[in-house]
Amino acid sequence: MAEPLFTRLTLIGIGLIGSSIAHAARKSGLVGEIVVQTRSEKTLKRAEELRIGDFYTLDPAEAVAGADLVIVCVPVGASEDVAKAIGPALKPGAIVSDVGSVKMSVIRQMEPHLPANVHFVPAHPIAGTEHSGPDAGFAELFRNRWCILTPPESTNQNAVERLVEFWTKIGADVEVMSAKHHDLVLAITSHIPHLIAYNIVGTAADMEDNVRQEVIKFSASGFRDFTRIAASDPTMWRDIFLNNKDAVLEMLGRFTEDLTSLQRAIRRGDGDTLFDLFTRTRAIRRGILDIGQDIESPDFGRTPAAEGHGSTNGK
Amino acid sequence: MAEPLFTRLTLIGIGLIGSSIAHAARKSGLVGEIVVQTRSEKTLKRAEELRIGDFYTLDPAEAVAGADLVIVCVPVGASEDVAKAIGPALKPGAIVSDVGSVKMSVIRQMEPHLPANVHFVPAHPIAGTEHSGPDAGFAELFRNRWCILTPPESTNQNAVERLVEFWTKIGADVEVMSAKHHDLVLAITSHIPHLIAYNIVGTAADMEDNVRQEVIKFSASGFRDFTRIAASDPTMWRDIFLNNKDAVLEMLGRFTEDLTSLQRAIRRGDGDTLFDLFTRTRAIRRGILDIGQDIESPDFGRTPAAEGHGSTNGK
Repeated sequence: MAEPLFTRLTLIGIGLIGSSIAHAARKSGLVGEIVVQTRSEKTLKRAEELRIGDFYTLDPAEAVAGADLVIVCVPVGASEDVAKAIGPALKPGAIVSDVGSVKMSVIRQMEPHLPANVHFVPAHPIAGTEHSGPDAGFAELFRNRWCILTPPESTNQNAVERLVEFWTKIGADVEVMSAKHHDLVLAITSHIPHLIAYNIVGTAADMEDNVRQEVIKFSASGFRDFTRIAASDPTMWRDIFLNNKDAVLEMLGRFTEDLTSLQRAIRRGDGDTLFDLFTRTRAIRRGILDIGQDIESPDFGRTPAAEGHGSTNGK
Repeated sequence: MAEPLFTRLTLIGIGLIGSSIAHAARKSGLVGEIVVQTRSEKTLKRAEELRIGDFYTLDPAEAVAGADLVIVCVPVGASEDVAKAIGPALKPGAIVSDVGSVKMSVIRQMEPHLPANVHFVPAHPIAGTEHSGPDAGFAELFRNRWCILTPPESTNQNAVERLVEFWTKIGADVEVMSAKHHDLVLAITSHIPHLIAYNIVGTAADMEDNVRQEVIKFSASGFRDFTRIAASDPTMWRDIFLNNKDAVLEMLGRFTEDLTSLQRAIRRGDGDTLFDLFTRTRAIRRGILDIGQDIESPDFGRTPAAEGHGSTNGK
């Protein structure tokens, strides 16, 4: 068997992403041994029962000692505390990475606490499921998903290439871009859609009782897709909005400007403005279908028989 | 074979909904004969090739003569013209219905032009696919979908019951409510979600070139679901917003109020407000799962292998 890419991988945090990395790295023979660290005794015990790693500890400093790859898999808001705890114990030459959904903030939080002799290569695998915790992980989670690396310009190129190889070998398609650009693109593709979904579901939750019940009943007419997005993990998403504040507020500004102009068109009965926009938006959808990012079939294979009133295409 | 429920069904308009009603009514033996009318010579010819009905005409007055059930299946904005054209030719005692996504406006448009001796029972089957035209119709479209009837209070109860029976026998679950209530419930469950989806996709379309390309590329992180909704038929949706103006503007007002307060929470770093909302919205999702309006499995059976970067649950 070939030499593993890294001798010792340490995972700080062992939820869905951390445990999936462990499964994938082991399955593809990329690492010699895996150290698992988490703050929760219960979660650590569960990880051990599931045999996710080779060594288990509650102590972050102990966990990173001797590791040549450390991946921090905690909510974005906890990044600074982790960096403080592991910084002094890191092995010279180690690669330190993470999996956070926001990159500028993670860099701001972690970089000051990392020694100059380690390589910091922030990463964001765009993958997930509705489930969380060490039981939820599986080796195929990252297959055919994007993983975006945002190394600061001064980062050692060899370290970046080794991390690209790591993610590529566990199935991801890797892109490298600046942290600022990442945060802007994710604000519009992910953070604002989630904020809007949370918001409209919240608006509906505040409706008078008799209407609220019917919102649930007739949700198949469009609302339902928003509720799924708005059922995402509250802690993770709170941290994302607080930590990508600038890009989110910038994009939110554009969104509400545009919405105000639509509102005006409706109030004035300006059908042409509505029709023009509704036609333009089809081109974006076409672009997504063209590059194979979605499938065209109605309801994505949802079968009416299996789920009752299931159309997402009702009017 | 049992006596059909209606001797002659006339369909004004023969797109996805009209042709699906024809297939379903015939398959279940509910009608003696079917008359098909549409404005477009080409569409009428196509309907005839597909053998959707028994008689075909471009003339609405000729079409409704002798019919005991007339269902108007045209964009909401065309309702008044149709009512004017068919009003004088309707058979006394006939039931006149429609399939529009907005009910107050359809009633305002049609009622003044219908004779006192017919029964007007507006209806809205909440069903559809991405496709349109007579080729798109199929008999099972309404199975396990809601159909909402909004008869004015003075409507003959027997006529309402006959239409309930018609929709029930072609597979729909029928609800009766006021037109005003319908328009309010659909504004929040369907019209506002569509407006928001159109709006955010429009905002993205107006981004600088380099960002726009990446919005498409990384759409799987949440944005993609919005683009599907925003690819809906422009004419139909323009008519919906223009014709449900009051309820849409009312709901849009609540939505933007709530969004402004979220924006303020993000700007001020108020994590508790965000966390509270994100927790509350899960209860609505739970309600939808509890009554079987959606399924819990991630990605609704989308398979990564089949579609590339397919997670809707990325961060």
